[in-house]
Parts: sequence; structure tokens; C-alpha cells
Amino acid sequence: MFDSGVGGLTVVRALRRLLPAESLIYLGDTARVPYGNKSPQTICRFAREDAQFLLAKGVKALVVACNTASAHALESLRRECPVPVIGVIEPGVEATLAHEQSRHVGIIGTTGTIRSGAYQQALKAARPGLKIQAVATPLLVPFVEEDWLRHPALELVLGQYLEPLLLRGMDTLLLGCTHYPMLVPLLRRMLGGKVRLVDSASTCAAHTRDLLKAKGLLRAGRARGGLQIHLTDRSEQAEALARRLLKGEALRIEAAQL
Amino acid sequence: MFDSGVGGLTVVRALRRLLPAESLIYLGDTARVPYGNKSPQTICRFAREDAQFLLAKGVKALVVACNTASAHALESLRRECPVPVIGVIEPGVEATLAHEQSRHVGIIGTTGTIRSGAYQQALKAARPGLKIQAVATPLLVPFVEEDWLRHPALELVLGQYLEPLLLRGMDTLLLGCTHYPMLVPLLRRMLGGKVRLVDSASTCAAHTRDLLKAKGLLRAGRARGGLQIHLTDRSEQAEALARRLLKGEALRIEAAQL
Repeated sequence: MFDSGVGGLTVVRALRRLLPAESLIYLGDTARVPYGNKSPQTICRFAREDAQFLLAKGVKALVVACNTASAHALESLRRECPVPVIGVIEPGVEATLAHEQSRHVGIIGTTGTIRSGAYQQALKAARPGLKIQAVATPLLVPFVEEDWLRHPALELVLGQYLEPLLLRGMDTLLLGCTHYPMLVPLLRRMLGGKVRLVDSASTCAAHTRDLLKAKGLLRAGRARGGLQIHLTDRSEQAEALARRLLKGEALRIEAAQL
Repeated sequence: MFDSGVGGLTVVRALRRLLPAESLIYLGDTARVPYGNKSPQTICRFAREDAQFLLAKGVKALVVACNTASAHALESLRRECPVPVIGVIEPGVEATLAHEQSRHVGIIGTTGTIRSGAYQQALKAARPGLKIQAVATPLLVPFVEEDWLRHPALELVLGQYLEPLLLRGMDTLLLGCTHYPMLVPLLRRMLGGKVRLVDSASTCAAHTRDLLKAKGLLRAGRARGGLQIHLTDRSEQAEALARRLLKGEALRIEAAQL
């Protein structure tokens, strides 16, 4: 599994719960994070390099835990990689459509994810009548990375981003970035019970399980699988956030050179 | 001149005013921006690669327009480069000390710049009695890059960062990041006339002139020098910010591969 940084560890968390026997190798490209405001060409180049690092370690499947990389690079990775590739867009779309009552879906994500149109197109294709509004919310990741999760400034920022969605009656909010599950408590407080929150972390884990099963790749036995974390930059901030996201795991973090 | 992104163009602007005859080559490492929250080792590696790119173009002097890179990599760049190397820390310190009345200096910058202690040590060495308080302000760059320069959320963020400095009677605020000159209008409104604002862009330009003069490297003649901008990622956001920062210049932006 790879991500632009350590936000993708929310997907690791979900996968460890669902598939405890599987061994996981995680690459976080913390030296070049964020991907969200960079150009599609650069994002595709970075994603290809991340995938090469993991393929060289002999992985049997590849999870792209980064929404921006999934939005831009998934198709080319699928063409180029000799193993199954799972992204977070399809699982996010599936989780959104799981509730028949959804009529008006708001999507928030990085500038790259929203501009790609990946979520919008997939939702439209699956349910043509759905009302969809997508908003790029680039200031959210910095707040999460600073752990200012209850700060009034973050509430003002979120309020500004969500206002056009709420004005038009959004009933479902798709969290299109692996950092955003950390915002759920604040979002619940701001939105009350009227808006359903959807994130792709748990659906992505279920997708991965189904795919491994279908391909006969699921690991047998009950022994807990290993967990390796590789970061292209081992900054204090990244390591601290990794430990926060994977509380309870005995973490060994290694430096990766791409 | 290089910077982690396009913020260093504030230094370009000052240098173009002071030394219009000089030709400038600017490298912005927009593919790996920001540097401010990455580890010292990674920052030094990036700075070395940035310098190599410019040295290969035959520059006669090198300006490190990035505070984080100046704080961590200046000494090693000076050892390794065959041309004079100018950073932004010394000019910022000099600008701060230019006013004899300064008693209590606040410094704001990225986590990397503040943790390095570069500004604090240089100020302390030059004027031992000075009261110095440094605060890492990592959320400011994202607001500047999004151009949310008058947003109430930014005011709350700044208020939180500046509170401990104001409580203890700061009379001078050193803006230790090339993005921060964009915050001056809001800072003036929030701080009134009681706090002097210091930034290194114009002092860095004066430093560069003095150094080129001392080494006999100043360009003669009145013809306006050229300006080349190279970016490692040509994202729309970076190009838009570059055009905002260098309004009035006919910009040609090229892609750089490091």
C-alpha cells in the first residue's frame, strides 16, 4: 500500500482489522507530500515510483491509499503492474451508493482529486439521477497534520467549504481524502445527524478482501501478519502522526529511498 | 536562486528592483514543496540537488531564497559550491538589528526553520541582551498558497500564533519565510503600529548587491537582465501564484527535471 504521506494509515487500520493475517508493507512518500496540489503528470510519475518500490518487495497486490494518486494514476498503474491494483475511488463510490436514500452527494478532496473528476464521473455513471457537488478543500490536510482538529479556525474553514453544499441540500458527504476521517467528530458536530458521512477506508479494506479471495490470494491461518512502514522522509511530524493513526500497533518505521 | 516553491519570488522581485541589469535564473522545487515540515537530512539533500541544477547553468552566485533551506543547508552549500552562496537568515538578522530600539524580537517561520535555531543563534550572537521568542507557524504557507489572505480563519490562526509573543511585549516581528510578506497587510491591521515588521527579501537583495560588488561580479551596463523561471512541477496553482508575485514581468515558466 502506498500514500503520499501517512494519511493512508487510516486504510491500514481498516485493513488490519478486516484481514489480520495479511502482511502489509506501507510506503508513505513523506519527502514529497502533499500530492494533492501538484500536476497530474507529476502525480503519475510519483505513483509509478511508489509502485516500483513495493513491487520490488514482491507484493501480491497493491493498494493505492491516496485519493489523489487513485484519481490520476490508477488506470496506468493497472496497465503496468503485474499484480492486482486497488484504489480508493471505487470503494468510496460504492460506499456512497450503498444507501438508496442518497439524493444529493457532496464530495470534498484535494484540488487534484476534485479536478480529476474521478468521483463525479463514477457516481454519475452508476446512478445518473444523483445530484453531485464537488468542492476542493486544500486547507483541511494541513490542519489535520498539525492536529488542530478542534480549532475554531478549522470550523470557519470547513464552514466556508461546506456552505455551498448545505445551501443546496446535500444529504451525503463523501470524504475523498485519507486524512479526512480524522475530521469526523468535528463534521458530526457541525452537520448534526442530517448528513451521512462516507469514507473509503473501510470499504477499501472490504474491496481488498473480496479481490484477494476471488484471486485465491487470501492468506490462510490465524497468525497475525507483519506490518512494515517505510517513509521517504522520517520527519518527527510524520512519525508522530503515524503513531497517532496506528495507536496500539508496535510500529517500526524505516527510511525508504525511491 | 532557488526556493522550495514559488514563495522565493518575493526575493526575485526585490532583486529585480535593486539590480535590474543582472540576469536571474530561478528554480522552484514545486514537485517537492513544502520543505518546512521535512527532516534536516531531506532538506539538505533537496538543497544540494537544487544547487546542482543551477550550477550546471553556469551561475556566478547562488541565492538560497528559502528560509528552511538557508537554516539547514547554507554551511554545507558554502563548502561545496564553487561560487558565492547567499542565504536569507543573515539578511533577516541584519534587518532586525538595523533598528537600535528593538528589545524583544518575535520570529515566525516553518517548523524546520524555527527548530534549526538559526535565527535565534545569529540574533543572540550579534546582540546578547535581546529578548527572542520563536514560534513555528506551519499553517500560514497553506493560507498564502490558497490566496485566503483576508479570511477570518487566517486571523484566528495568526492570533493563536502571535498571542504568546504579544503577551510578553514583542516590539519587532521577523517574518522568517518567503511567503510571509504576503501577510503584511493583515499583520499590520492586527498588530497596529506598535510592532515593527521585518522581512529578509529586500535585505537579501542588498546583501547580494554588496557581495557581487565586493567580488567584482556586478554586471555593467543598463540593459535589463533576463529572467528564467524553472519549476520542478508546473501545477496551475504554482504558476498562478508565480504570476501574482511577479505581476508586471513577462514570465516564461519552464519545467525542470532534477
